[in-house]
Amino acid sequence: MMEDNSVGSPKAIGVFDSGVGGLTVLKALINRFPNESFIYLGDTAHLPYGAKSPETITRLVDQNIKFLAKNGVKAAVVACNSASTVITEDTMHGIPIYNVIDPGAQAAVNASHSGKIGILGTRATVKSASYPTRIKNLNPEAKVVSQACPLFVPFAEEGLQDDPLTNLIVYRYLTPLLQETVDTIVLGCTHYPILKASIAKVTGPNIALVDSGEAIADQIQADFDSGKLEKSTDSPTLKLSVTDETDFFMQLAKMILGTDNAQEILRVNPTDPDCSIW
Amino acid sequence: MMEDNSVGSPKAIGVFDSGVGGLTVLKALINRFPNESFIYLGDTAHLPYGAKSPETITRLVDQNIKFLAKNGVKAAVVACNSASTVITEDTMHGIPIYNVIDPGAQAAVNASHSGKIGILGTRATVKSASYPTRIKNLNPEAKVVSQACPLFVPFAEEGLQDDPLTNLIVYRYLTPLLQETVDTIVLGCTHYPILKASIAKVTGPNIALVDSGEAIADQIQADFDSGKLEKSTDSPTLKLSVTDETDFFMQLAKMILGTDNAQEILRVNPTDPDCSIW
Repeated sequence: MMEDNSVGSPKAIGVFDSGVGGLTVLKALINRFPNESFIYLGDTAHLPYGAKSPETITRLVDQNIKFLAKNGVKAAVVACNSASTVITEDTMHGIPIYNVIDPGAQAAVNASHSGKIGILGTRATVKSASYPTRIKNLNPEAKVVSQACPLFVPFAEEGLQDDPLTNLIVYRYLTPLLQETVDTIVLGCTHYPILKASIAKVTGPNIALVDSGEAIADQIQADFDSGKLEKSTDSPTLKLSVTDETDFFMQLAKMILGTDNAQEILRVNPTDPDCSIW
Repeated sequence: MMEDNSVGSPKAIGVFDSGVGGLTVLKALINRFPNESFIYLGDTAHLPYGAKSPETITRLVDQNIKFLAKNGVKAAVVACNSASTVITEDTMHGIPIYNVIDPGAQAAVNASHSGKIGILGTRATVKSASYPTRIKNLNPEAKVVSQACPLFVPFAEEGLQDDPLTNLIVYRYLTPLLQETVDTIVLGCTHYPILKASIAKVTGPNIALVDSGEAIADQIQADFDSGKLEKSTDSPTLKLSVTDETDFFMQLAKMILGTDNAQEILRVNPTDPDCSIW
């Protein structure tokens, strides 16, 4: 049963993704803000968002942000590029929203000397052209090359980050970007940092890799510094929740967050008005 | 708008899957029964079923069968192993239901001389133990070895059936079954026939491969012969429908069914009472 106890709850930052990918963002935020509380919502009943239409993604995002807002978060991080492509507002259901694309685009423009920037993403993210559009808004001279990498998510989810097959897939997807001599590559899907070592092996030391988690942490830091977002004064807590089966999620949560952080996972139903994370 | 025109519609066989995998079953049925009409429903808004919980799959299956029944089909083929694992009835919403597991289990028992049978499937299918249970009901002496192949679906969906990377993945998943000296392997996911050539290269000529589409066609043939299911006397028609974005589905439908069969795809919403395929 839902009780109206959000007043007494620590004011957490909500982090939401279709599944486990957003855990790479959560990990970056926990590392950067160890005194903050977090609620993670993995919408595993509806993953993957990367192959869904904008209308379907919009409906799911709205439903999940509403659920986080009801659970009293002070802000929500949409830690999913496919979901971020459909977000047009700075606030939803009364709370500020951080999408991963704006800080990723800004970090890429800051990092690139040549203005030649590569984007790796799901089919939905690439098709949306969100990164090229926002990068060109920041630097109209930029040249942006996008590459959909549909096999990266299954490889990351299978925990194959150290596998020789992963290197072969990485070579295949990255070759077109290397041929265009990009000097910066955006990991435009929150799963991709899991494969970062393999990607870095192929790009070498002269190409900057932009990781959404770090870029969003920079933005939140700026909002803490300016007072736009209030720092927590309570003891930090972490709640992980998912909308479907928990076993496989738990395995990956342990891999990404470490076993200290991933200890218990709630199963929730955002469409049930009686369902609460607290 | 839905009109009650099911009486005037050709009595089609409904075929339903979470996405494109069931098209391999549809293709086998079209080849075997060229005078029958078919309605295909791909629940692409909710794919993949293979990673979902039994409760979620049960709810989706019920919703989709109800939709096909409303559209006047004379029978429904659940052309998805993950969905078939949750089906316990022979009829649903007033129409006979064909699941892929029973005929696959029967075909495996018929094909195996040694009684050592391998099952390839999604995590959900392997976890359900549906094949081992049904095979042991038919032959209590059988030894069944199961192997989850979570990368087969993305490889099949990427159209990588002739790719050297696919062979490497196939070797990896099949090695445990070869080590157990199975003489029969069930392709326990309707996507897997897309990779059949690559799988056959690894198994060699002495291991029988059981394909769900063929096994279900045998069962329907038997029901036509016994008069349990009525043959169509109308001109055959084919309707393809999906619950989400159609572009990627169309590409794969052309690959699997050929361009003559895959010409138009309807987008439908089974939960909308006004939505109809006819």
